[in-house]
Amino acid sequence: MALAEGRLVFVGLGLHDERSITLRGMDAIRQADVVFAESYTSILSEGSLSRLESATGKKIQLLDRTAVEDGKTILDACKSSRVVLLVVGDPMMATTHVDLRLRAEMQSVSTEVVHGVSVLTAVPGSLGLQHYKFGRTTSLPFPQEGYSPTSPYDTIAENLSRGLHTLVLLDIDAENSKYMTANEGLHLLQDMERRTSKLIITEATLVCVVARAGSPEACVRAGRISGLVNMDFGPTPHSIVIPGRLHFMEEEALRTLADHNAALSPEKE
Amino acid sequence: MALAEGRLVFVGLGLHDERSITLRGMDAIRQADVVFAESYTSILSEGSLSRLESATGKKIQLLDRTAVEDGKTILDACKSSRVVLLVVGDPMMATTHVDLRLRAEMQSVSTEVVHGVSVLTAVPGSLGLQHYKFGRTTSLPFPQEGYSPTSPYDTIAENLSRGLHTLVLLDIDAENSKYMTANEGLHLLQDMERRTSKLIITEATLVCVVARAGSPEACVRAGRISGLVNMDFGPTPHSIVIPGRLHFMEEEALRTLADHNAALSPEKE
Repeated sequence: MALAEGRLVFVGLGLHDERSITLRGMDAIRQADVVFAESYTSILSEGSLSRLESATGKKIQLLDRTAVEDGKTILDACKSSRVVLLVVGDPMMATTHVDLRLRAEMQSVSTEVVHGVSVLTAVPGSLGLQHYKFGRTTSLPFPQEGYSPTSPYDTIAENLSRGLHTLVLLDIDAENSKYMTANEGLHLLQDMERRTSKLIITEATLVCVVARAGSPEACVRAGRISGLVNMDFGPTPHSIVIPGRLHFMEEEALRTLADHNAALSPEKE
Repeated sequence: MALAEGRLVFVGLGLHDERSITLRGMDAIRQADVVFAESYTSILSEGSLSRLESATGKKIQLLDRTAVEDGKTILDACKSSRVVLLVVGDPMMATTHVDLRLRAEMQSVSTEVVHGVSVLTAVPGSLGLQHYKFGRTTSLPFPQEGYSPTSPYDTIAENLSRGLHTLVLLDIDAENSKYMTANEGLHLLQDMERRTSKLIITEATLVCVVARAGSPEACVRAGRISGLVNMDFGPTPHSIVIPGRLHFMEEEALRTLADHNAALSPEKE
């Protein structure tokens, strides 16, 4: 086989399983000499990558956090091969991927991004909430000894003060198969309220949960936090949305799609 | 053929052409009795739908704005058939689609969303800008007699005051094949500055343009507005990003991926 020009293509796997990849992503895998998948920012449901191997006839090599951050294995392979790096969701959401792309470009490796379905649009869309009414996205990290910032709470407060919704992404420690549940996330938010006494999230606050966004078995719920905090949403991944002012169509959507009891609805637009 | 249970599946076509659809989207088309595509919120490049027809063996019926907003054709078909409505990008971004979904659910038609690649994540990702540093998204409508709001400018100002980036979507009048160019959009922003004198966007303001996001021929540029306002970005669709405070990796990304001259970079984080 003749040596190909070095090339690195980031391919978004989308959400849930291997059926969320695009046709363009499949083309990129089929044309690749080497296919890596990173397994630490997020992973698909079990068996997805092996089914993707069967469908494309390519071996997929799993890379852990160190290998992706260090980048040597990938960049070495790019010198003379067409390399694909598979990433869950839409690539370039993590700084590590941007860093890797820039390092490849600086070594004269041509790069390309094949975009994928992202939780950033799938979650608002599943709830019927309007994208232009979302403020800054935030994320909740797993609490660590001596590190439990309340900055996500500040973001929610800032968005709410402007009537905007907040998408709250929940921490993933994919290498240890730990996904934060919406229940843990809601508990953390209640804890932030206790620590800051800002009266942002009270027992009556309307919250939304989307579990398994992008899967045919997605679960979509809205209600008072007191009602949702102990609800069972099934397997992870989960996401939370704290809605701001709701347009009547958004309220109708939560009622119809997310089992939201209209009597509990908050301030209207 | 036995009458199927009524079912309406919104399938995201993703961006640029038919290669951006997901495998799950292809499955949905193949299992459908009737396939519609809406042609007014956005369209794919020429020939995409007919290639999709060939690949799936299904006839795709184009619906105009009136037919989608009115919804009768679609909802009538759902009574006894499995119906797919194809939408560019990720469905549910337009209120019309949410409205249609709710009306179907109220008529006991089961609905599903097959998510697609969206400009909302593809544009930030193409530029190497971090999603959690974006504030509220805004959009620029084509100016009309007696209607040229400066509210998009307020959103940009509000985001900038908090150091956040703004994604500026440009108007699409797909039925008349009119896509706003980044040049028109930048002129409109300059005009809003003239009308409001807020000193938000001056000649030296750093702006980014992404043309044909999601296509292999995407064009990504960053620079002072005075340099970009008359630049040729090639065929539409175009999008604009007004960056807030840049992290050093974001600045590096604009320099490497978007031909941005570092000497022109604005306030750093």
